[in-house]
Amino acid sequence: MRIADVIIKKRDGQDLTDEEIKFFIKELVDGRLEGSQLGAMLMAWYLKGMNARELSTLTNTMTFSGETLSWPEEWKPVLVDKHSTGGVGDKISLILAPALAACGLKVPMVSGRGLGFTGGTLDKLETIPGFKVDLTLEQMQQCLADSGCCICGQTDTLVPADRIMYATRDITGTVDNANFVTASIISKKAAENVSALVLDVKVGRASFSPTLAAARHLAKNLVGAARDQGMSTTAVLTSMDHPLGMMVGNSLEVIEAISGLKGNGPEDLNELVAIQGALLLHSTGKATNIAQGRDLILETLKNGAALNRFEKMLINQNVQPGVAYELCHGNVESVLPKEKFSSPLVTAASGYVADLDALAIAQVCGALGAARARASDVILPAVGVQLNVKVGQAVHEGQVWGELKHECEHVPKNLWDKLQDAISISPQQQTTQVSRILEIIQ
Amino acid sequence: MRIADVIIKKRDGQDLTDEEIKFFIKELVDGRLEGSQLGAMLMAWYLKGMNARELSTLTNTMTFSGETLSWPEEWKPVLVDKHSTGGVGDKISLILAPALAACGLKVPMVSGRGLGFTGGTLDKLETIPGFKVDLTLEQMQQCLADSGCCICGQTDTLVPADRIMYATRDITGTVDNANFVTASIISKKAAENVSALVLDVKVGRASFSPTLAAARHLAKNLVGAARDQGMSTTAVLTSMDHPLGMMVGNSLEVIEAISGLKGNGPEDLNELVAIQGALLLHSTGKATNIAQGRDLILETLKNGAALNRFEKMLINQNVQPGVAYELCHGNVESVLPKEKFSSPLVTAASGYVADLDALAIAQVCGALGAARARASDVILPAVGVQLNVKVGQAVHEGQVWGELKHECEHVPKNLWDKLQDAISISPQQQTTQVSRILEIIQ
Repeated sequence: MRIADVIIKKRDGQDLTDEEIKFFIKELVDGRLEGSQLGAMLMAWYLKGMNARELSTLTNTMTFSGETLSWPEEWKPVLVDKHSTGGVGDKISLILAPALAACGLKVPMVSGRGLGFTGGTLDKLETIPGFKVDLTLEQMQQCLADSGCCICGQTDTLVPADRIMYATRDITGTVDNANFVTASIISKKAAENVSALVLDVKVGRASFSPTLAAARHLAKNLVGAARDQGMSTTAVLTSMDHPLGMMVGNSLEVIEAISGLKGNGPEDLNELVAIQGALLLHSTGKATNIAQGRDLILETLKNGAALNRFEKMLINQNVQPGVAYELCHGNVESVLPKEKFSSPLVTAASGYVADLDALAIAQVCGALGAARARASDVILPAVGVQLNVKVGQAVHEGQVWGELKHECEHVPKNLWDKLQDAISISPQQQTTQVSRILEIIQ
Repeated sequence: MRIADVIIKKRDGQDLTDEEIKFFIKELVDGRLEGSQLGAMLMAWYLKGMNARELSTLTNTMTFSGETLSWPEEWKPVLVDKHSTGGVGDKISLILAPALAACGLKVPMVSGRGLGFTGGTLDKLETIPGFKVDLTLEQMQQCLADSGCCICGQTDTLVPADRIMYATRDITGTVDNANFVTASIISKKAAENVSALVLDVKVGRASFSPTLAAARHLAKNLVGAARDQGMSTTAVLTSMDHPLGMMVGNSLEVIEAISGLKGNGPEDLNELVAIQGALLLHSTGKATNIAQGRDLILETLKNGAALNRFEKMLINQNVQPGVAYELCHGNVESVLPKEKFSSPLVTAASGYVADLDALAIAQVCGALGAARARASDVILPAVGVQLNVKVGQAVHEGQVWGELKHECEHVPKNLWDKLQDAISISPQQQTTQVSRILEIIQ
């Protein structure tokens, strides 16, 4: 078999056989593929598509392109994970993983850093002094045995095919493709060897899927591919036009997550933690229906069980016990990095908040250091926006609707203007969405 | 400007601006482009196409991606070249370049080695002991001043963009694309700084263009792009189902070229040398019409002027004068490498030769060492087939229709069978093509 012939076949719109896909991925992982051949193949696949069988084979071959995680046999039925396609203010994982652990599940969450306009889950956790994201399989097993959950980074040996393809997609204009996104996400989750999975597929201007149709297509692709790999999987489509919760920025989101773990989180955040947890509790038979699952999750937040798991997880992941205690039970802000400057954002008119543009807010925070444009960029952990108002709320002219936390005294005018424009105030109260949950795809 | 954005634009089927094309080629030549980005871009261009303006800009940018050749001002009107898309038994350049030189033109022919199932012009010339294909610009100028022509290889500094793209196309399944072929050929000819160009576009099973429609499309593309670069250009579409002349193989083709230079070449070879020479003589005003041009070319073959130029060119390109003399005026075969084995090919029936399959003959010769599958392969110069019959000719059972020249005593059975099957004999005489010239595209 010649690589060029496999590329030509896909170029001409033909379906690849399982053998051809396996050959291509093996050549890739073994370092026998030229970069140009990967680029050409990705573009041919992007433009000519792949059928469900090709996607399933690609995902499976990527899954087994390196090591997979292994767990004690008795954990099998309770091993679960979640994945979000990424939104602004999304700190769900920090609350959900310990809440699920408190319900008796095991959550070996392998997460990512952010690339683009927001920090990732690991970037948020790394604002906690001492927190270590690089764990060996033994450390993950130890962490799960003790706290029931861990949140760590991808190792070099886990799904190496995805690591190479992901880096190449980024520079070859082949990122926004439902099949590639699916193979990338599901192969990593399948390599974790979990039994059940919940997917948070964001819909809206500050997400990967701007329309409901695009999100639905991606969600169905993801659910199908995950089931093909043997995971019981559900997807929730959730709206991502406005920031989730009141905090945007890495250390700010840790602060809000701690509130959430104490049962004091904002309503929209609680809602999404509860539904995602409920779906996994139902999948694993820990809840007989979604409503019961939701109650179980909310109970772990109210009774401190989730917070207790989070504290244990921090200690298992190298945070000093005193620091973990102070963060969970003392003065959160004393532990986390503090911004140099805080500038109030003031409303220009009275009326009702018609919009808070999540994309604009994230882009301003990102440009001020809350995210990285290149993998080598350093994140400024305290940069972010703290919101004081929600969409639909009445405001009066001159009211402080938020605080920008920044590190350089001078905020460039274009960024400041963009942030001021992120709020829209309307004289009449608009009908606003009550729930962020748009659809559940089984 | 970001490379990924340029790729995305083409991926989405949009036309690229001149600035985007120039930026892409500059990044490529300056080594700032990842291989994967070139692979993705080639595939996007392959699948989404390019308009005439993009092709012209690409060709021009490639032309000036390195050094271009420069000549004394007074040569400008008489600098010409030809290019063939490649066929079996095609030794036209070896005769045409010296014939044109004998008519007062200057021919700085930068040619290629073969990759695929035949040797290239340089592979043929290199069977002559001492012949040197690597010339500096000064050596080319010296050669043109003395013999009026040279046939040499591409230097490292000439059209570097093409060298990189060509190598990448080969491994990414993006070879057979009229736009890429056009940009590659025309940029190299434009970098030679010639005023007139003739293109021999082969049509048929043993060529790049199996159908007349495909050849016509490619020829029009080539002529348009060459004119855009300021070269007066004509294309001849010529049939390539049967081998050109009676000899296939590197040193065998040199032998036949010497016959041609003495006016004793086979009719089909003479016809194509004459038409291509005539078109260039007409383009440069050395002939008032095609018929006169044809006569001028044939005259240089009959009176020894072309052979004299060829002999001088050999000496200018490092061949010992005694060797050049023996080759041109003595015993040709005593100079060239001789095969170890010669096996007769015998007809199985009486009748008329209905077909001689050029592709099959070339593939067998190639497999026995007359061509290289990879750039690093070594060519066996004496391997080839000498034909004794032409299509349309009457034959009787048991007649020797050709000789296979080979280096290993044992010819694998599948190759031998393939060669035996390359001749078709029909009981009735078929109507055969009188001329190989199918069309001239001005």
